[in-house]
Amino acid sequence: MVSPSPFQNLPATLAWEDDSLRIIDQTRLPAHTLIETLTNAHEVWRAIHELRVRGAPAIGVAAAYGLCVAVQASRDLPLDRFVAALKEQAAYLDTARPTAVNLSWSLKRMLRAADRASVTDTAALYRVLVGEAQRIHHEDQQLCEQIGQHGLPLIKPGSGVLTHCNAGALATTGLGTATAPIYAAHRAGIAFRVYADETRPLLQGARLTAYELQQAGVDVTLITDSMAASLMAQRLVDVVIVGTDRVAANGDFANKIGTLSVAIAARHFDLPFYVACPSSTLDFQTPNGRNIVIEERREDEVTHHGGRRMAPHGIKVRNPAFDVTPHELVTGYITERGIVRTPFDANLAALFGAAA
Amino acid sequence: MVSPSPFQNLPATLAWEDDSLRIIDQTRLPAHTLIETLTNAHEVWRAIHELRVRGAPAIGVAAAYGLCVAVQASRDLPLDRFVAALKEQAAYLDTARPTAVNLSWSLKRMLRAADRASVTDTAALYRVLVGEAQRIHHEDQQLCEQIGQHGLPLIKPGSGVLTHCNAGALATTGLGTATAPIYAAHRAGIAFRVYADETRPLLQGARLTAYELQQAGVDVTLITDSMAASLMAQRLVDVVIVGTDRVAANGDFANKIGTLSVAIAARHFDLPFYVACPSSTLDFQTPNGRNIVIEERREDEVTHHGGRRMAPHGIKVRNPAFDVTPHELVTGYITERGIVRTPFDANLAALFGAAA
Repeated sequence: MVSPSPFQNLPATLAWEDDSLRIIDQTRLPAHTLIETLTNAHEVWRAIHELRVRGAPAIGVAAAYGLCVAVQASRDLPLDRFVAALKEQAAYLDTARPTAVNLSWSLKRMLRAADRASVTDTAALYRVLVGEAQRIHHEDQQLCEQIGQHGLPLIKPGSGVLTHCNAGALATTGLGTATAPIYAAHRAGIAFRVYADETRPLLQGARLTAYELQQAGVDVTLITDSMAASLMAQRLVDVVIVGTDRVAANGDFANKIGTLSVAIAARHFDLPFYVACPSSTLDFQTPNGRNIVIEERREDEVTHHGGRRMAPHGIKVRNPAFDVTPHELVTGYITERGIVRTPFDANLAALFGAAA
Repeated sequence: MVSPSPFQNLPATLAWEDDSLRIIDQTRLPAHTLIETLTNAHEVWRAIHELRVRGAPAIGVAAAYGLCVAVQASRDLPLDRFVAALKEQAAYLDTARPTAVNLSWSLKRMLRAADRASVTDTAALYRVLVGEAQRIHHEDQQLCEQIGQHGLPLIKPGSGVLTHCNAGALATTGLGTATAPIYAAHRAGIAFRVYADETRPLLQGARLTAYELQQAGVDVTLITDSMAASLMAQRLVDVVIVGTDRVAANGDFANKIGTLSVAIAARHFDLPFYVACPSSTLDFQTPNGRNIVIEERREDEVTHHGGRRMAPHGIKVRNPAFDVTPHELVTGYITERGIVRTPFDANLAALFGAAA
């Protein structure tokens, strides 16, 4: 099943073809559009670890297909040994990145599907796994579409929308999460502006969000992360919409580093701050944001720009990939079932508790 | 008069030697330490315009010496024509950058000195100009020293200090402004940490502040601008100290883009937010922040990183070099005469009104 991109000029984030997982190498965009075929567990792990495929929902889909790829070396084994290999590979892939819950959510769901399958041979179980991965993939596309519809009323004609990082089509296999209302509004013929934070250190905003919105014909302006508050002060921003990598039970959420800063500024200027969130990103097992593990990444992501060292040699660096925004700063979660408002603990559980 | 750097390993920001102005090209730091000699008005204008010499106080000193350089071509003219050339060159240099008030402050002061001089020939007036520039230079060093002494009590043992951009030794001809309390505390043997925002787009934090603090042996950690709020949330920051390019009469101030974001986050986390400000940066002619002209710079500063294009071709960009932080977010101004607290309009005028 090939995921069709919503945009003529943009390749699909990932595709399942001939029993292998193909991805765009997102670290090379927008300058180069490289399609990579992942043929074993290590390649899948590295592609996720190195952000060649990234974005919480896309990581979930990639992990599901990736698990299928990872067990292909065991397809000649008897069923019990295949199942053992499956569990081992799922545990391995789960270590690729710590913060996005979709990774472990997807792998757990794949294992559950295997567990529940009434099959008697390895080939049949493998087919069950591919089928489940395709369902996860298809659902991801539907989730984006539904988030787009529920978020659409937030974007008024003439308004300015600010987003941070890339919770876009490239972070999912559909319309994106934070970008879904943007694409829906654009499709509906509404005229509005988007401001894309460049999102240091890895520039997902400059490289991916600016790129995909531009390709789709959306009026998008690139800014540095440090400019967001200034645009708000000038009343150029009417609503903020971001994505998330993990939402805790109380409504605290993790997202790309810098999200907290945007949320605080939005509150300061009394602007609505929404988080686009498919239910696959909800983590009811994590009571609050303090319990979310934050990935700390390599120093050279901060010291280097465009591959060139800009900071002095030997300088100390912090490089947390995510921050946690407390639920008090969130106006609402845009989910596939509608916008969830405060109190988030009760309302998220009421809408999605059974599914978790 | 050569300005001695406060640090063994750091060259002086600028120097007046053999009737010419020498500067370090700050766009090349920290990788390359290039000393440039400016020998005519156009070179001075370009050096300021292109940020090879930058930082509000250093711009003021560079403009004063730069005006001496600019009138050297007119030294053979009779006095009246020399004075006409002087005024013309001052008006020209004043157009190099719009936001830092020190540029026009310094040029006006040079013209005033010329006006008041009782000289009868061009050579004598030229000597008056050089003398005034040297006084501005010397005063700048003293201002930094005094700001350091007044700001010293703000840095407690074990505390974390956050700064944005470079209001450092490299932005002045002395200890810096925002860094003056840092250097004073370091000299006093206090153990504390500094977090330096990298300060996109031009990375004055990564390239200059991290560099000069590291050279001075201060415990400094480099972060992206987007990480400041997250460090505050983790209680790693105890006080914020930044510089400024212009302070309006009501206490609103302009500083490097991203300062507003830091100020809002500091307020959110109830952290003290101080602005180091020599009186040369006060502008009583500008009633409030809305009247401060904000320089908009080239798009490629945002689209390129380390000289390499990272954003898609043709993308729209905003690139304001500064933002305005309203006085409500300021805890105090660290001036050469002490810390000025709210109400700023009355207290700044009381302390400095006569000098303006």
